[in-house]
Amino acid sequence: MTADQQLLDAALRAWKSNADRAEAFFRPLSEEQLQQEIAPGRNRLLYLLGHLAAVHDAMFPLLGIGPRMHPELDAPFLANADRAVPSPHSADDLRQRLGEIDAALWSAFGRWTPAEFLARHTAVSDEEFRKEPHRNRFSVLLSRTTHVGFHLGQMVLTHPLR
Amino acid sequence: MTADQQLLDAALRAWKSNADRAEAFFRPLSEEQLQQEIAPGRNRLLYLLGHLAAVHDAMFPLLGIGPRMHPELDAPFLANADRAVPSPHSADDLRQRLGEIDAALWSAFGRWTPAEFLARHTAVSDEEFRKEPHRNRFSVLLSRTTHVGFHLGQMVLTHPLR
Repeated sequence: MTADQQLLDAALRAWKSNADRAEAFFRPLSEEQLQQEIAPGRNRLLYLLGHLAAVHDAMFPLLGIGPRMHPELDAPFLANADRAVPSPHSADDLRQRLGEIDAALWSAFGRWTPAEFLARHTAVSDEEFRKEPHRNRFSVLLSRTTHVGFHLGQMVLTHPLR
Repeated sequence: MTADQQLLDAALRAWKSNADRAEAFFRPLSEEQLQQEIAPGRNRLLYLLGHLAAVHDAMFPLLGIGPRMHPELDAPFLANADRAVPSPHSADDLRQRLGEIDAALWSAFGRWTPAEFLARHTAVSDEEFRKEPHRNRFSVLLSRTTHVGFHLGQMVLTHPLR
């Protein structure tokens, strides 16, 4: 592998490992366990499950992969605080959606060359991107990896990571 | 910049932004506020401050930059749970050490080419590295970035990030 391929490979491994840890964390939990709050009065685990699904789903249009798979996740899990908007989804539905979203992202990531990862993301215009070329897909991949880690740090307060 | 330089630049920005957020979080907090636990019975903010300093300090030998600056941080903040081993350091000492450690790391990172970031880290032998070339310095940079994010997710349960 060339240097750019190796650097990309490392970032893809970091994304995959964190996304997999989040999925593995939620997998064995009961509906009741998912009602647990990460700290008194803070988000429930169920909210974080839906939130990760919503944020990852939003990566499809942001990265120019395609349309959202599940835009209905935004109101209950992204635009609003926990419990503010009822979710129509069961915990099993949410787990399944997160798994499908992550799998579809992973499949798209595997098709891109380093140069394609360095292309602009869709929240930046061509003109802005000329001035700020670091606003690329790869930066989104890195920041979303840290975002998973941010919430793993909260989730682990309720149950150990696997 | 070539593709490998651009990918490295994105990862360095991600590291810096997270390390800076952690330092900015701790900066205005009083000794008393640093005694606060992230959740009932869990680590105090003071422990996480010392923990980040210890983990970042351990990156000097791990990345082959040089010896530890502050190995005395390990017993109270890395090898043992919060409160198990008394720390000789005040909160101000810890803040200063984290700042110095992060600054010295940043200076070292700025001197390395992409190829140097793809060299092995010192916890892997030459033979292992031939089979697993992804065990390189760049992977350490990425995983330590997510590590900061992991604890930021916990810290934000007590005070907002700045």
